[in-house]
Amino acid sequence: MTQGVGRIGRYVRMVAQPGQGSALAEQLMRVADGLRDAPGCELYIINRTPDEPDTVWVTEVWADAAASDAALSRDMGEAGIGEVLALLAGPPEFVDLAPVGGPGLR
Amino acid sequence: MTQGVGRIGRYVRMVAQPGQGSALAEQLMRVADGLRDAPGCELYIINRTPDEPDTVWVTEVWADAAASDAALSRDMGEAGIGEVLALLAGPPEFVDLAPVGGPGLR
Repeated sequence: MTQGVGRIGRYVRMVAQPGQGSALAEQLMRVADGLRDAPGCELYIINRTPDEPDTVWVTEVWADAAASDAALSRDMGEAGIGEVLALLAGPPEFVDLAPVGGPGLR
Repeated sequence: MTQGVGRIGRYVRMVAQPGQGSALAEQLMRVADGLRDAPGCELYIINRTPDEPDTVWVTEVWADAAASDAALSRDMGEAGIGEVLALLAGPPEFVDLAPVGGPGLR
């Protein structure tokens, strides 16, 4: 699989400090709103987990790695990545993906 | 969080028998193509994993649980769920999600 060319995706798992799952989801929705017009941002979906109220997963798909790097460094800064990090109980975990296709992907 | 009402999502992790990751992804793309017009199917994205060539993740979002149940029981049967299962090294693993919103979600 090639690196650095073509569409990329990831799942990001974040665990908030106890009782802070709703606050984390709200802050991440602010980040998501800031990415609506970001070039190459195909998906940036905030998900709660029914069985783990303090865990939030983000589903990301980007046109390429450069678009992801550019948008997340710029827009997450503007949207308050500091506020996101302050809510976490530990570092985020990542599952790196190479999206192939399917309904919902442009 | 309510059960049974409103949008649901899940990540499904499938591990193919050794060397069968491409065949699994291809078969799942056939399932995905069969779901393009399924009522309530908002996302059904097939993803390979750069670091684990035999692992495939499916990103699903459905309008509600009933839409998911109806489409997967009907269309995966038609599209050959038997062929998917025959390629797996073990049972699929699921992460159940409650999508909140973000770019790419209708």
